Amino acid sequence: MSEQIEGRNPVLEALRAGRSINKILISNDIERHSAIAEILHLAKERKIPVEWLSPEILRTKISTRSPQGVIAYASAKEYVDVHDLLDITRSRNEPAFYVMLDGLEDPQNLGAIIRTADASGVHGVIIPQRRAVGLTGVVAKTSAGAIEYVPVARVVNLNNAIKTLKENNIWVIGIDQGVKRTFTEIDFKLPTVIVIGGEGKGLSRLVKENCDEVASIPMKGKISSLNASVAAAVAMYEVLRQRSA
Amino acid sequence: MSEQIEGRNPVLEALRAGRSINKILISNDIERHSAIAEILHLAKERKIPVEWLSPEILRTKISTRSPQGVIAYASAKEYVDVHDLLDITRSRNEPAFYVMLDGLEDPQNLGAIIRTADASGVHGVIIPQRRAVGLTGVVAKTSAGAIEYVPVARVVNLNNAIKTLKENNIWVIGIDQGVKRTFTEIDFKLPTVIVIGGEGKGLSRLVKENCDEVASIPMKGKISSLNASVAAAVAMYEVLRQRSA
Repeated sequence: MSEQIEGRNPVLEALRAGRSINKILISNDIERHSAIAEILHLAKERKIPVEWLSPEILRTKISTRSPQGVIAYASAKEYVDVHDLLDITRSRNEPAFYVMLDGLEDPQNLGAIIRTADASGVHGVIIPQRRAVGLTGVVAKTSAGAIEYVPVARVVNLNNAIKTLKENNIWVIGIDQGVKRTFTEIDFKLPTVIVIGGEGKGLSRLVKENCDEVASIPMKGKISSLNASVAAAVAMYEVLRQRSA
Repeated sequence: MSEQIEGRNPVLEALRAGRSINKILISNDIERHSAIAEILHLAKERKIPVEWLSPEILRTKISTRSPQGVIAYASAKEYVDVHDLLDITRSRNEPAFYVMLDGLEDPQNLGAIIRTADASGVHGVIIPQRRAVGLTGVVAKTSAGAIEYVPVARVVNLNNAIKTLKENNIWVIGIDQGVKRTFTEIDFKLPTVIVIGGEGKGLSRLVKENCDEVASIPMKGKISSLNASVAAAVAMYEVLRQRSA
């Protein structure tokens, strides 16, 4: 299995993170940029073949709108499992901090969430295997390279994963509209997994029932929902705020 | 000037908000959906002509990827000016709460910010006339209809707008990386305009100099920036949190 990484920063982050890269394609009209210089330097150092192609030919190979003249072929990014996430938390010596995504479908939202997860110090993201987006090229690009650093567990059943997390004394906090309790009232200093619902659907019934607490993000306007990646970001930064206080 | 609104929810929100709509186009293979029923109901009530077209013909008229079979032509959304925003604040009897965008270029980010601005109770958004995205169809669609409710001032010069805001005792808080002070240390109970920089560029030099305070959003990971719409959302919800406390 090989994965196509598109764009200057995603390719550079993959190289910096030590991903196994088989080949790099670069447009021969590419602009001079420090990121390109570093890509070429790292490729040379690691003996990764670089092919220079015309922009027309490169364009036939891309899946995103603006690949910025660089594509890399890497060994597929590997998923971890929930026990790996627990190990990561133990090694960090911090209360657990995970984000679980219940049926997210938009790759741009997943990429944005992974980017914010990296920034806010999340230990890992948990996604379901079915009826949800996985780690695609669009996700990698929208994550601005964060996909290389944030461990993602893809599980067969979210409710089983919740059970495992609860057995490890982690609090399961669902974010959903229509409940009175707001997210800032939750004590996020405790080991926590934040559960975010899919676009337009919110949390699924069973997942919601399995949450220890469900809290809402206050909505003061006329539109009744936030974008899933925005809701996730606001919740993640509340965890960080409470833990820094 | 006419504006094309694409998608089920944006068209419905435009109708609900009382926008002046000249014509609605609907695909004749459209799925039954309560939003479509409400669109047809409101169109009939207001004597707005509805044309049923084949999906192939409708597709030739769209600018976004998934118009969901509905397009409306509306009179262009009007910009307000900074003094209108000050009037709105006075009528609300709350401390001012604005968001200024310094050179945002991505219409999806602008739409996402307007959606979160509606949700978090922002009184108005301020954007510059040049070198920045305006209120396009993509913005309307990404805003999930919030564009109908959030006043947007488009100004010739952001620094003049800042001067006017300062004269009205509003605190100008820039969000930018690389400063030690974090955004949660700012007192957002005071009348505030939050200033967010463009994608990848941050705040421009002069705007930054004119801010009363510049504060950062803490970054714990390997990637050194947040998406502009995420940074804006995290800051807007911190204002709301402090004012609700």
